[in-house]
This record gives sequence, C-alpha cells and structure tokens, in this order.
Amino acid sequence: MPQLRIALAQVNPTVGAIAANTALALAAVKDAAARGAHLVVLPEMMVTGYPIEDLSSRASFIDASRAAVEGMATDLADAGLSDVAVVVGYLERADRSERPRPGEPRGLPQNAAAVLHGGAVKARQAKHHLWNYGVGDEIRNFVPGDTVHIIGVRGVDVAIAICEDLWQDGPSAAAAAAQAGLLVVPNGSPYEANKDDVRLELCARRARDADCALAYVNLVGGQDELVFDGDSLVVDAAGDLVARAPQFEPHLLVVDLELPAATEPMPDTDTRFFGLRVERTVLSTDPVASYEPLPRPQAPRLGDCEEVYTALVTGLRDYVRKNGFTTVLLGLSGGIDSTLTGALAVDALGAENVFGVSNPSAWSSEHSRTDAAELARRTGLQLDTVPIAPLVDAFQEAVKVDGLAEENLQARVRAVVWMALSNQHGHLVLACGNKSELATGYTTIYGDAVGGFAPLKDVPKTLVWRLARWRNDEAVRRGEPPPIPEDTLTKPPSAELRPGQLDSDSLPDYTVLDDILDDYVEQDRSARDLVGQGFDPVVVERVIAMVDRAEYKRRQYPPGPKISARNFGRDRRLPITNRWREDVSDLPVDQESTARG
Amino acid sequence: MPQLRIALAQVNPTVGAIAANTALALAAVKDAAARGAHLVVLPEMMVTGYPIEDLSSRASFIDASRAAVEGMATDLADAGLSDVAVVVGYLERADRSERPRPGEPRGLPQNAAAVLHGGAVKARQAKHHLWNYGVGDEIRNFVPGDTVHIIGVRGVDVAIAICEDLWQDGPSAAAAAAQAGLLVVPNGSPYEANKDDVRLELCARRARDADCALAYVNLVGGQDELVFDGDSLVVDAAGDLVARAPQFEPHLLVVDLELPAATEPMPDTDTRFFGLRVERTVLSTDPVASYEPLPRPQAPRLGDCEEVYTALVTGLRDYVRKNGFTTVLLGLSGGIDSTLTGALAVDALGAENVFGVSNPSAWSSEHSRTDAAELARRTGLQLDTVPIAPLVDAFQEAVKVDGLAEENLQARVRAVVWMALSNQHGHLVLACGNKSELATGYTTIYGDAVGGFAPLKDVPKTLVWRLARWRNDEAVRRGEPPPIPEDTLTKPPSAELRPGQLDSDSLPDYTVLDDILDDYVEQDRSARDLVGQGFDPVVVERVIAMVDRAEYKRRQYPPGPKISARNFGRDRRLPITNRWREDVSDLPVDQESTARG
Repeated sequence: MPQLRIALAQVNPTVGAIAANTALALAAVKDAAARGAHLVVLPEMMVTGYPIEDLSSRASFIDASRAAVEGMATDLADAGLSDVAVVVGYLERADRSERPRPGEPRGLPQNAAAVLHGGAVKARQAKHHLWNYGVGDEIRNFVPGDTVHIIGVRGVDVAIAICEDLWQDGPSAAAAAAQAGLLVVPNGSPYEANKDDVRLELCARRARDADCALAYVNLVGGQDELVFDGDSLVVDAAGDLVARAPQFEPHLLVVDLELPAATEPMPDTDTRFFGLRVERTVLSTDPVASYEPLPRPQAPRLGDCEEVYTALVTGLRDYVRKNGFTTVLLGLSGGIDSTLTGALAVDALGAENVFGVSNPSAWSSEHSRTDAAELARRTGLQLDTVPIAPLVDAFQEAVKVDGLAEENLQARVRAVVWMALSNQHGHLVLACGNKSELATGYTTIYGDAVGGFAPLKDVPKTLVWRLARWRNDEAVRRGEPPPIPEDTLTKPPSAELRPGQLDSDSLPDYTVLDDILDDYVEQDRSARDLVGQGFDPVVVERVIAMVDRAEYKRRQYPPGPKISARNFGRDRRLPITNRWREDVSDLPVDQESTARG
Repeated sequence: MPQLRIALAQVNPTVGAIAANTALALAAVKDAAARGAHLVVLPEMMVTGYPIEDLSSRASFIDASRAAVEGMATDLADAGLSDVAVVVGYLERADRSERPRPGEPRGLPQNAAAVLHGGAVKARQAKHHLWNYGVGDEIRNFVPGDTVHIIGVRGVDVAIAICEDLWQDGPSAAAAAAQAGLLVVPNGSPYEANKDDVRLELCARRARDADCALAYVNLVGGQDELVFDGDSLVVDAAGDLVARAPQFEPHLLVVDLELPAATEPMPDTDTRFFGLRVERTVLSTDPVASYEPLPRPQAPRLGDCEEVYTALVTGLRDYVRKNGFTTVLLGLSGGIDSTLTGALAVDALGAENVFGVSNPSAWSSEHSRTDAAELARRTGLQLDTVPIAPLVDAFQEAVKVDGLAEENLQARVRAVVWMALSNQHGHLVLACGNKSELATGYTTIYGDAVGGFAPLKDVPKTLVWRLARWRNDEAVRRGEPPPIPEDTLTKPPSAELRPGQLDSDSLPDYTVLDDILDDYVEQDRSARDLVGQGFDPVVVERVIAMVDRAEYKRRQYPPGPKISARNFGRDRRLPITNRWREDVSDLPVDQESTARG
C-alpha cells in the first residue's frame, strides 16, 4: 500500500487577522514540509479565524479571505513547496450568478476548504451541513455546499469533510462510496467538559463505516466565549487511534500512514452519492518511495479538573491578548471566586500582569483582608487596598438608601473604583462571578458584575471549589506553594454586604442548587421532573423563579469561557420579557425573595 | 359568489403568559362572533406570545400551548360558538415518532396555526419557511412543516400561510394550485421604519398571482427589542386594498368578502404542490344567507416621524408593563437625548410614573439644570437633583484619576445614584443613549449606559432631533404645550464631562456621521465604497475604527426598540475579539482616539 506522511496543524488564529493567520498557516506548512510531510491539513476557517459570525456578510472580508488563499498557494510555490498538498479552511463566496434567495446571507458566503498545490488553488469544498444549534448560527451566516472532493495525492484518494459534515450523515458516506483511502476533517470544534471521548468515538465510527483512515484537525485557543482544545487525532480504517495531539496548545502532528492505492475513477466523474456531487482532482499520482515510518505520538489526556482549568486559562489569556490588553484588574474579596479568578489570571498572564484590589467595607470580615493579602503573597500578584466606607458614606449623604439598595450600593462603589483604575492604567477588569450566581441572579448588576471578561461565568460554584482544590494539589505535585489560602477554601461563602451575611441565607446549599441548575438550565427539565427526582418542591420553585427573573442581568454580563454543554451566552437564548413559569400550582409556595438587585 | 364575514384580531399577547393570551384570544373571538364573523384569524404564536426563542425547546411549554388551544376549542363550544371557524397561532410538537435528528431542536417544536371548529382542533399547520435572518432564529427553534391546509368554511376554501411562508415561494402557490378562495396569513412581523409598503405590495402580488383574496393579521405591542405594529389588512384577488387596521393598537378588523365557491376536491386529497402536501378539511358547507355587507374600514397611515415615535412609545410601555414595573427613572442632563427619552416616557407611562434626576457636576452648564427643570415643568414629570461633585471628590480622594478616566468617573457616579434610587423605589432605569453614540462607543459603560431599557438605542442622533421637533410640532397641532424646551433643540450637543467639551471635539458632524454609519453598519459597505461615495477618507477610517472597537460596549448595553433594518441587538452579531479592519492602507491615517471608555 502507498505510504503518505500527513501533518495536522493545530494552530491558534485570531478572528479577522487574515494576514497574521495566513502567515501562521504558511509557517506551519513550511515546518511540515521540512519534516517531510506530503499532505498538510489546517483547521476550519483558519484563514479568517472562527467563528466569524456576521462578518461573513461583508463582501470586503470575503474578498480578502479568497485573496489570502490564492496568495498562500503562490507563496508556497515561491518557497519551493509546490509539491506539498495543503488543505486549509477559509471563507469563500458561492459560485452562483443569481442574487441571494430570500433568507440567504448577503454575499453568499461559504465556510470552505481550499486545496493548494502547484502554486494554485486546485479545489474548493464548502461545508454541507451547517452548524446551527448551541452557539452555532451557520445557517444564518453561510450558504451550504453540495460537493465532496476527492483529491489524488501521491497515488492516494483523499476526501474532505468539514466539521459538522462528520457529525451528520452524508459526506462521510459519499467519501466511502467514492472509495477514498483517507478522509481529512478540518474542524473548529469548541471545548466542552466531557465532550472529547465523543469526538474520538465519532471518528472511529465514521472510519469503520467508510473503511477509510480519518485525520481530524482542530483549532486551539480562545475566541470570545469559545475555547478550542485542539485534540487533533488520526484513526485507521479499523477505527483504532493512531496518533493524537496535546490539548489546548499549538502542535504539528506528523503521522505516517499506509493507505490503499487510488482506484481508477469512474468514467463519469460527476457522480452523486447521498445527494452530494463527488468531484475528483488528481494532484499527483506517483507513490512516495518506500521509507521508514516515524513513531506515532499519542499525547496523554488531561484529567477532568486539569482540562477545565486549562480551558479557563486559555480562554482568559487569548481574550486578553487578542484584544490588545496586557494586564488585568480584579476585586479581591478573600472569597473563593475572586481568589480562583486571581490564580487563573496569574497562570494565564503572569503575576506581574495581575492587579488585585481589596475594597473592605464596614461589614468586611478581618479574614477577607488577610485572605486577599495571602493570595497576593503566595502568587506574587499586585495588591492595592481601597476602603469603600467613606465612598459609601458620601452616597448615603446624597441619597439615603437601605436594605437591598444599600447592599448593592457597596458593590457598585467597588465597581466604580475598579473601572477608574482600569481607565487610568489600561487594565482589563475581570468579573469574578460563577455560574450558580449568574443563574440565580445572586449578583449586583453594575457592581460585582462589571468587567470585560468573566473567567468563571460558566463554572458552577461546586466546581469552583473542586478546581481550587485541584490547583492547590497540582502545586504540591509540582513542588510549588499552593496558591489558594486554606481559609478561603473552607470558610462559608458570603457576599459580606451586611453584618453576618452568608450565601446560605438566600440560596440553598450549593450542592443541591447546582444539581437543580444543571437539570433546569442545561437539560430543560420541568419543575415536575425535578420534584419527581426527589428535590424539595419549595426549593425547586424558588430556584426556578430566581433563574427566570435574572435573565436581564445575564444579558448585560461580560463574556466568559464556555465549558459546559449550555452556557449563558449564545447557547441559551431566552426572552427577558417572559411570563412563563413552570407549573407548580399544587406545590407549597414560598414567597421569600432572595436575589440581589 | 358566497359571502363571508372575516375578523382579523390584531392583539397584544405577552410571551409566556399562556393563560392570559388564551383569554385575550377568546375575548377577541367572542367579540368577533357578536359582530357576526364566520371566520376569525389571530396572529402567529398568539397563544405563547412571539418570539419565544429557546423556550421552544421546553417540553412543559409545548404541552401547555397544545393544551391551551384544545381548551380554547371547548371553551368556544361551551360559549355556543362552535360554528365559528378560528385560526390561531400556537406552539406545536411535530407529529413524528423518531427522536430529533442532529441539529434539530429538542422536543421537535413547531410554529403552527390551529383551526378550531365544533369544539375541537380540526387541523394543524406548521410554518414551512422558517425565519432565520435579521433577528429571527427559527431554524434553531422550530422544525418546519410540509403541509398547506385548505379548510372549507361556509362553502369557501380557505388556505393558510404563516408569515415567512408568504415572503418565500411555495405555500401561496400551493394554495393557488388548490384553488383556494381566500388565503389567511397569521403574522408576527416586527416594525421597521419604511417597511410597511413592502408588506402591502407583497400581499397584493401574492393575491394577484394566486387569484385569491388575502387576509393578513399581525401582532401589536412590544416584546423586548421588537415592536409589532399591527397594520393588518385585506386585499382582494386583484390585489386591491379592501380594509386596513390602525398601526400599533389592538383592533378587531371585521370585513365582508364575496369569495368564489369551493371547488369539488380532487378524489385524491393528498396532492403535492411545490413540494408541499395539501390537506383539505371541510368545517361547514352551507353558504351564508345573503346579507348587506358592512362598510370597509381603512385606517389612515401614520406619517414617518409619528410612526417611529409611536413605535418607541409602544416598545417602552410594553417593556415596562410586561416586566411588572410601573415607574421609570432617568438621568436628565438637559441634552436632547435624555429630554426626548423623558418625553417618550411621559407619553408611554404618564408623567406621574416618570422620575427624572438631574446630577450637575463641576462642569455642568447652567442651561443643563434649567433645561431639565423646564422639561419637568412642561411635562409634569418628577424631578430630583443630586449634585455629584462631593461624590466625585470622595473617589478622587481614594483613587486619583485624570483625563478620560476622570470623565468616565463622573458618568459612573451618576449611574450609582440612579441605581440606588431604582433599587430603593422600584423604578426601572432608562438609558438615554442614541444609536450614533452606541455605534461609535461615545458612551461610558456602567455610566450613562446603565439601565433596564434604552428607548433611543436604535435611533440615530439626526433622527433624535427630527423626532423631538415632530413631537413639539404635534403638540402645537393638538393645541398643547410643546414638551421639548427650545434651547435643548438648538444647543450644540455636549457630554459636559470636562470644561467646554462638545461632541464635535470627538465626532464628525452628526449629519455626516449618521450617513457613514448607515452605510457601514446597516448596509455592510466597505471603506472603499464609502470613500468612493465621496466621504473624507480620514473621517471614514476614524468612524469605522470607532465602530469596530466599541463592540464590547454594545454587548453589555440594555435592550431597546428596534426601528431600523439592522439594530445593535440580535440583528448584527459580531465577535468582540475581531482584528478585521477595512483596507484603508493607501489612505491618510488619523491616529486620534476619541471614544469614551
């Protein structure tokens, strides 16, 4: 069987930075060629970054993307690499003379892969199944393709499927029917906790069904709320894992494969399989001279907590850097949320770029100050202290408020201090709230909710504690001092906005709360289902009412890295004006209102 | 030809309030029956409110909607109205045994119309063409239908098409092929300035093409960012306008029509036209005894400014009321934006429910106070004054800032005052910024940008002035005192955050700015196109850079009524992390940074 050395370029582009992304792609191809690769595959929409959302409709952007792949082909030829076959994701325009039909995006954009060889773009394949659920809006943004390309590379037939085309039926079956020897799959597949094995299982199943090796290459890095985890991999035609790249870091995965020789194409090359047109393009026919294959690298998988923690660090680092910031500022209360956020920021950006502010109030405990100072001491982040009592007093002088309004006033005075320091010194402010708080509205809008990015936005409170403990344990394993003060890990959570206040005054125990939230928010379970599962009906009603009422706060919350199956960003789109309440009419009702304003 | 009295119920439901919406629908049908109607048509998704977004995937919500239409049918029979035919929009579940396919919404929800007659649901038709552009996400939220129903009502064949099914080809042609005598179209079609004639033209064209009268019924009222303007209408088979309901207010449009007698259905009733299955359901065959038709009402159309102004009032009133608020609070600077917002709020909610706060600073002009007081005097809104100098001084004592940080500090101190008063007294805070400011980022996040609703969010500055002048002129026409002080209309705009500051220090003339913004934001024109149109390249580059950089501020801005073809809500979805800049490399570059932080 012919041999082929393939290289999967797991890279970190930036949305919109076409010139920089193209340079990154070129560098990867050159590196791969230097290592003897015959075929290089880059991820989905590598040239533009991903996802581009409504940028897809901008004609000037489509033009720039098209020009970039043409330029890349000639640059490769100029570098003497015209015999390397390259598959790269980019933004294309549908090849149609008529105007967009009603409902089609302006400019007829397509999420496509270009095949570069011999100094030219030899084939273009547009994504057929568009990703239109969860955070994906691709039917809004792209026109689907209807073709599967088979490209002949050194005597092997290589088919292409783009991301969702692997998840849904059709394209991989068409590749199988056309007897491809290898299916390459450029992806922009975001991280979700526990999603990874699903990908490997899918790749293995498609490979077995198609009797064809499969090479899956994914992006790495953060883009707004999404984190791409890489995890590029190759399976053989039996579905067995052959090689795997590390998660969350750029990597060039070079793999030697023995693949079936290309079949003689049918006389009529325009054959339809599963509603898809199959097109064949032969780049080169001469098989590679026999050589000794390289060892096949299989990067170890990260553990559950390490994986989530690394996703948060990656999402934070890329949001900060790709938006042109160097430093971040966050309020440090001595509580577990701001402490973990501080530790994440230090890991992402270095202690010298993290500025903590402690804002003790009349109700702040002694440990809130000492714990914040202890975090600074352990991690090396900068700590400044700005007491808020005189500021709160000044407002109380001007507008006398009490109760919840007084609590929120303190949180907002802190936010004004952070934003003043941010504007003065150019720091990006981090919001430290977790998913359980955001779900229930246990957060002060324009108070602790201010910020450019919210690293824990999709992390439930119980997972916050687990991640903090894991981070400390990891430090011990590495022989380093644990960053999180022990007292912060063990003390009962409190907003400290009134004397003796505890979260447990307003919220159920976090273990119960997070279970209910997972069922209600992520699974769309009804109140009746939840009660049927054994939850206290009074608690269920209270929690659901809090979640429903807090939609307006979530709408103004900063972005944060998605790690769950359904985050509070574009994954869950609910009206603010919404009187739907789950039917709990025959359950006892508790009227206590608990959410902070 | 048989006669038929049809009633189009232009109503204002609330999303999620299934019981209240059903009661509203029942009341409309009873009213219509009392006025002798044989067929009553209610808008799209009337039972659930519209749009429901991801509520569509909640099984308990689908169940409740299905139960509501069943209950409505029996309630009508109980009220002795079982012989009235009713078409009403609701949320259905697709009639399929298999589980959702990949990418299909959980629970297989459908945007459907139910036909009620004789105490039962006699037919159910799901929307075929799903609305998936602009602010519509229906492919995400619904499973499409594949059937057009022809219902026999008193000897007339009536076909149904739901909203987008009229805009795209197929359903109306199927109705024509099935020789329907009347096409009824339930809609949830949001207001856009200058959109109305497009609707009438479309209805006329479809009616002529199908040789069939057409009855178009639309929602009224506000739902988050959308405002439904009603404008329900009937055209005859020649496409001529027969009757039209007023805009923006609930109305029952009762119209007598002479329609062709039903044709004998083909022996095989399951005929496919244009890929759609046609199903026939005969409710009643006996023609109505001949009677004297009613006059045909044609409500006058609103003028351009009145239409936009009424849309803003409607959107504001419904956001406030449907979310359970009675009163609003806004900062009054004496400038045109907050003054117009105050006038809108008074028109929407009554002066007794509008609380203005004047927050003079060290840099506030004398006229900023007197103009705010004059607005209060003219409209009767409540005005409170809270000077901010001592508050700003307290912050400057704690964290010394200058420049832009100092300007923003003042704006944020004001916001803390508003939010304290809001929390203390239960007022909803209104943000007063306009679309031109939001586009360029000329707004302080967590400062003037705070609020639960932003009435002018989609109104460019030049239109703010036009609306204010129109409102004053309208007052004069009605013999009332004009609400907007003359000085506010004529003085140059200023944020008054530093001595002598004017908007024109930072922004181009608003006439030029709004022209560029319209081209760049709403039309996706490139920098080159704009320069080609004659705009100064330096100005074009500056404006585009400001717009691109301000995405993060827009993401945290409150909702506001959409009046343009593309608002800054779900109409324009761009990444925050986005390095794409229009190519202006051969144009002179101006580096001055102007946006407020």
